[in-house]
Amino acid sequence: MPATATTTTPYQQLETRMRRLNALQGATEVLYWDMATMMPAGGGEARAEQLATLNTVGHTMLTAPEMPDLLDAAEADTSLDPWQQTNLREIRHRWLTATALNEDLVEALTRASTTCEAKWREARPSADFKSVLPALRDLFALVRETGEAKAGVLNMGLYDALLDAYEPGGRSAEIDVVFDDLADFLPDFTRQALDHQARRPAVMSPEGPFPIEQQRALAERLMTKIGFDFNHGRLDISLHPFCGGVPDDVRITTRYDEADFTSSLMGVLHETGHALYERGLPEQWRNQPVGQSLGMSTHESQSLLIEMQVCRSAAFLIFAAPLMREAFGGAGPAWELDNLNRLYTQVDPGFIRVDADEVTYPAHVILRYRLEKAMLADDLALADLPGAWNDGMKELLGITPPDDRLGCLQDLHWYDGAWGYFPTYTLGAMTAAQLYDAAKSSVSGLEQSIQAGDFSPLLAWLRDTVHSKGRSVGPNDILLQATGRPLDADVFKQHLKQRYLS
Amino acid sequence: MPATATTTTPYQQLETRMRRLNALQGATEVLYWDMATMMPAGGGEARAEQLATLNTVGHTMLTAPEMPDLLDAAEADTSLDPWQQTNLREIRHRWLTATALNEDLVEALTRASTTCEAKWREARPSADFKSVLPALRDLFALVRETGEAKAGVLNMGLYDALLDAYEPGGRSAEIDVVFDDLADFLPDFTRQALDHQARRPAVMSPEGPFPIEQQRALAERLMTKIGFDFNHGRLDISLHPFCGGVPDDVRITTRYDEADFTSSLMGVLHETGHALYERGLPEQWRNQPVGQSLGMSTHESQSLLIEMQVCRSAAFLIFAAPLMREAFGGAGPAWELDNLNRLYTQVDPGFIRVDADEVTYPAHVILRYRLEKAMLADDLALADLPGAWNDGMKELLGITPPDDRLGCLQDLHWYDGAWGYFPTYTLGAMTAAQLYDAAKSSVSGLEQSIQAGDFSPLLAWLRDTVHSKGRSVGPNDILLQATGRPLDADVFKQHLKQRYLS
Repeated sequence: MPATATTTTPYQQLETRMRRLNALQGATEVLYWDMATMMPAGGGEARAEQLATLNTVGHTMLTAPEMPDLLDAAEADTSLDPWQQTNLREIRHRWLTATALNEDLVEALTRASTTCEAKWREARPSADFKSVLPALRDLFALVRETGEAKAGVLNMGLYDALLDAYEPGGRSAEIDVVFDDLADFLPDFTRQALDHQARRPAVMSPEGPFPIEQQRALAERLMTKIGFDFNHGRLDISLHPFCGGVPDDVRITTRYDEADFTSSLMGVLHETGHALYERGLPEQWRNQPVGQSLGMSTHESQSLLIEMQVCRSAAFLIFAAPLMREAFGGAGPAWELDNLNRLYTQVDPGFIRVDADEVTYPAHVILRYRLEKAMLADDLALADLPGAWNDGMKELLGITPPDDRLGCLQDLHWYDGAWGYFPTYTLGAMTAAQLYDAAKSSVSGLEQSIQAGDFSPLLAWLRDTVHSKGRSVGPNDILLQATGRPLDADVFKQHLKQRYLS
Repeated sequence: MPATATTTTPYQQLETRMRRLNALQGATEVLYWDMATMMPAGGGEARAEQLATLNTVGHTMLTAPEMPDLLDAAEADTSLDPWQQTNLREIRHRWLTATALNEDLVEALTRASTTCEAKWREARPSADFKSVLPALRDLFALVRETGEAKAGVLNMGLYDALLDAYEPGGRSAEIDVVFDDLADFLPDFTRQALDHQARRPAVMSPEGPFPIEQQRALAERLMTKIGFDFNHGRLDISLHPFCGGVPDDVRITTRYDEADFTSSLMGVLHETGHALYERGLPEQWRNQPVGQSLGMSTHESQSLLIEMQVCRSAAFLIFAAPLMREAFGGAGPAWELDNLNRLYTQVDPGFIRVDADEVTYPAHVILRYRLEKAMLADDLALADLPGAWNDGMKELLGITPPDDRLGCLQDLHWYDGAWGYFPTYTLGAMTAAQLYDAAKSSVSGLEQSIQAGDFSPLLAWLRDTVHSKGRSVGPNDILLQATGRPLDADVFKQHLKQRYLS
């Protein structure tokens, strides 16, 4: 729009460009949601072309030749307010990251990911790590090359440059400290928790079947209570649950098991936490980088705060247990509050991360974090991954996987090129504990409200403390402002002790 | 992609550009479908921004500064095959149309349409034409300006330039001939059909309620029989039924009325005709202009061929009536074949176009066509529209609307800026009659197959004769090749006589 462009400042031109990029990203979100929930199988090829085109168009917009001059000129503008200044830094960061990689590298990485993922899908069922190793080696070399290119422009180490894609501003030196603390604590604590559990009555599972329509109705009822606004979102079904869409139209999904309502329900509440965060982003900045959600650890802190801190708490179950019984006509000892409490806080060390409980989950993550750092530092050869994995499992969880299907082949991440992602799960869990602890101190009667089914005081606190900040401050600033301390493992450890030993 | 661009011909570069534009258009289709079927109300503003951005990006791509040189260079390429040559002509046509209008005019037109549509929504319930007249005048002036700009670059008259948006290559001089023929025929024929109907037993309506799930199951069963592939499409619910999506993923919608299954069912079969056309477009050209559907009249011919020619025929009902009875447990005289036949071919002159039957529908269209031509030719002032409308209704249908709500305020088209659209409905009905007549001559035993529920001979003929042609030939060539004659009203008139007088 040349007529307008001459009368707008460089900063404003960047905002316009970012607003368009945000709309393209929003369109992409809808296309992904549709692909996972609605699209007939035969639509896959056309959809891939649509998504690739939107991606290309966005990349072209972000890396246009005029961008360096616009960024320089905007940075010289002394009239920008603090949000605008932070927004500009975010735009510069995006531009740097997008231009760090040349097109051939991006294409090679995409191809290698696709190849390795396909090999992994073949190798996993037969626990055949060797068969995926050559493809993983190719992919790993390109991941490293990508990380080094980013490390150069972002002026940071290799691991941090990869982590930056998921956790902007995250630093492995800081993660090491909190993870080492937790790794020291967990093995012994897990044994104590198991001993404690063994002394309590055995857990009973409510008996189904639980018709999908009733599960959905219960999920929607609880979502609404917690603050999900169905005028700005939906709940649907997909194979892998996720939260997508845009702040004004948040789409979450689940999958139902007619034999067991409990895991789908907690899954829905987990995604509801993600959804509340997206919905609460600052309204006037939502279409700009500064108005978007922080990295994966903050996002996961919001889902885990709702799921783990709130919805598996005794206070929540006092409110929710009658609704569960009502939804399915449940009666008898399995439906009693004490049993439901024990059911939702069961500890059971196992081989599979995605099935892990709150106590043992961090061990799975710390293992992967340490291994991926070692591989990137050339301290661990890819070929030696299975052995190192099993040693780590023994050390952290006291169990040894019988094969690589239950070991280093279980997660897609590495085989899809996602290195530096894993730590965000446990950073999120610790952040959630620290935030919820602060919420209970700051909001008087918080747990009583939850027990009475009133989540508005909690949501108001989260909106104020986390959601409405967007990216105007970093994750550590949010924690400092909300809790008076940076991220550490103490509050999380206290939370575990309180829930699993008392 | 500069590395590639140097090794590709100008024509190939245009193909790449068109493939991307097509992917953006496909993304837009999904976003519209989602908006009509799935999106929560609160998502509207974000969706509007996404759609507007995709539109802007597409327009920029199509009108890029290098386009004229690419087009000239490609047109000098003597190695192109006939499909490529036609594709190139289509690309030139799109570029001409896109560049004919300056940005200010497009923006003014969009704004005037939005304003006039809003006024129309207020004016219609109270039949207050005067209140929408000023907004309609503003919009009309911009529609005319748009048409004149297009007429200049396309080298055609004003009406034809507007018609071109819906019916590329259509000419009002040719439409006049067939419409005049039909307008002479219809008033007297309608009286004869009504006389004939009065001598037959009265129509009975099957009694409901007809639960939505059963209506949907019946619709999906018939769709599948006719050839709709649910691996490449869906049936959903929306307020205004439509056919959207892309050839590999065709999305049709309907709305259900629990008191009456008949109109939703015929609506679904109508959209199925549209869907079969999209699905049958030439596979290797689908992402290029030459591989897309012809104008609205051909599209409507495919929906009306399925709905009007096939699914309201006696042969179809022999097959479908038992399925209808089975779906709803229907029994008794209203469910008998003769009654269902009469029900689906009832003639009932009325004021509202969208409720009109096959016999009286063309009169509604011819009226609008004549009026819009007169207004564009300055032979009819906008202020005199209500009177001219009522005179036309009297002449063509023998009835006079009691007010403008049932008269010139009933359709959105003009109030939304769509001038030149109306004739395509009746051109489609005539084309459908002519094509189906040819199909019956060409495919031996066609009606017996339909009666037995086998639609594959019909679909194969349509694929071969119409769908697979894309835009490689025009609507008239399709008719000439399939039926040996250009479009005229004779076959349609014979069809009406055969169905309504015998």
